[in-house]
Amino acid sequence: MEGVLAPVLTPFDADLSPDPERFVRLCRSLLEEGLSGLAPFGTTSEGNSLSVDERERLLDALLEAGIPPGRLLPGTGCTALPDTVRLSRKAARAGCAGVLMLPPFYYKGVSEEGLFRSFARAIDGAGEPALRVYLYHIPQVSQVGIPPRVIERLLAAYPGVVVGIKDSSGDAANARAMVRAFPGFEVFVGSEKLLTPHLRDGGSGCITATANVNAAAIARAFRERSDERQREIDAVRSLFEGFPLIAALKEALALRTGDAGWRAIRPPLLELSAEDRRRLQQALKTAAGP
Amino acid sequence: MEGVLAPVLTPFDADLSPDPERFVRLCRSLLEEGLSGLAPFGTTSEGNSLSVDERERLLDALLEAGIPPGRLLPGTGCTALPDTVRLSRKAARAGCAGVLMLPPFYYKGVSEEGLFRSFARAIDGAGEPALRVYLYHIPQVSQVGIPPRVIERLLAAYPGVVVGIKDSSGDAANARAMVRAFPGFEVFVGSEKLLTPHLRDGGSGCITATANVNAAAIARAFRERSDERQREIDAVRSLFEGFPLIAALKEALALRTGDAGWRAIRPPLLELSAEDRRRLQQALKTAAGP
Repeated sequence: MEGVLAPVLTPFDADLSPDPERFVRLCRSLLEEGLSGLAPFGTTSEGNSLSVDERERLLDALLEAGIPPGRLLPGTGCTALPDTVRLSRKAARAGCAGVLMLPPFYYKGVSEEGLFRSFARAIDGAGEPALRVYLYHIPQVSQVGIPPRVIERLLAAYPGVVVGIKDSSGDAANARAMVRAFPGFEVFVGSEKLLTPHLRDGGSGCITATANVNAAAIARAFRERSDERQREIDAVRSLFEGFPLIAALKEALALRTGDAGWRAIRPPLLELSAEDRRRLQQALKTAAGP
Repeated sequence: MEGVLAPVLTPFDADLSPDPERFVRLCRSLLEEGLSGLAPFGTTSEGNSLSVDERERLLDALLEAGIPPGRLLPGTGCTALPDTVRLSRKAARAGCAGVLMLPPFYYKGVSEEGLFRSFARAIDGAGEPALRVYLYHIPQVSQVGIPPRVIERLLAAYPGVVVGIKDSSGDAANARAMVRAFPGFEVFVGSEKLLTPHLRDGGSGCITATANVNAAAIARAFRERSDERQREIDAVRSLFEGFPLIAALKEALALRTGDAGWRAIRPPLLELSAEDRRRLQQALKTAAGP
């Protein structure tokens, strides 16, 4: 896997149930716009706000709609090992390119041995030779990071199974260090702001929230690797700064599709306030030009 | 509800599946030793390391074994609202005294409005008039606390439904402030170290990890409210300091029951190291006297 992936936003009905139809539509259009793949059930997707059943039904909806599983990297890391096993097994059996696996994130300050065993048990428990694991490092949210020593041990124990990482720490030096330390390991950064330098360092691409609303331009920046393309995507990203990101992206999709239902978000997250909505709409309008 | 409750340790088989039989046995003996109630699926119980199905099966095992539901306060707060709803509804229908509800804990820095809506939706979603909610405030683990303003709003919106809190922050002033601010609100501290002063402040009791191994003495300290009883339970608690608490409690149970299987713990937590095991065994032996 390489290129640009979107942690796909999850659409909800008025009663906050996931809406498979709009989900399929968004996924299809993101691939048509040139994304390499989709990472449903990530942080931006409110993945951990979905039950295991809900995630399974949404994945089934994508597969039944003909979205190629080889383009999918669903999030499967839960606090409970049996949930991680169940979701990872299902993804592997469906032929997904891989899974994006958070460490268990309830307990804090856990040991490297505990983290290693968590991933090892999840892989062993899934028991699927086709499983490919991308580790998900997002310490500012999960509060449980994945240290280099754990990656090193996993690569030694599960060669060809643990194949990459999404580094959402925002720390370019950490991403670069992993590219250098682990040849062949696919390192994705968590924001397109780091895309071009990361690619020049030998990185594999990015899995970024804003790919939900700026897919074509970010995919182009991946292909062209120029400072100019990077500046263009940075400018769009900057429009979303100062807003709660997930709600702002949902607002942007609501605007683009004319479907106000896209604003629906599960607590503890909230829709944009009326004032934020007005500010964002103005910013997007100004950026789009006359 | 008042008095002393244990967040019951969860026994696992060699393959790390929960073992309902040993679970029932422990719960029964804790009640026999004088605890007011049991809070299964808390932090000490590795509750968030269990799937929803596993929690349901363990609760069923307790009910089928004749443990009175009026003594139970199962943990039901998950990151996904449907899971919280499902577990809370089941507990209410079974006649449980209440549920201990964590806020959704994946996203950090969430708003008070988002927290309020999370609890409100969980209560509305359960749709059970018999539901009684005890909020679970453990910011050092969940990283998502429950501020007074949220409690105030919940008490106004759900009088007679939101009835108490477990304050595991370790901040005696916070517990005292809640007792004063919210008359009739049942405030439990998360450690017996604070028990006697908390009771003198008008608190309802404690829900404490060490009640798994020192139930009778802590229950007696609740009844007698004397400085001497407090010193006795403090002395026992201090034996566990400097060890990873959950693993140490499981070790103590393994020792007491002669059943080494009690050591089994799910990653990311680990059994005590050989060295820690030796140290703890020595400390417990010395304390027990010749």
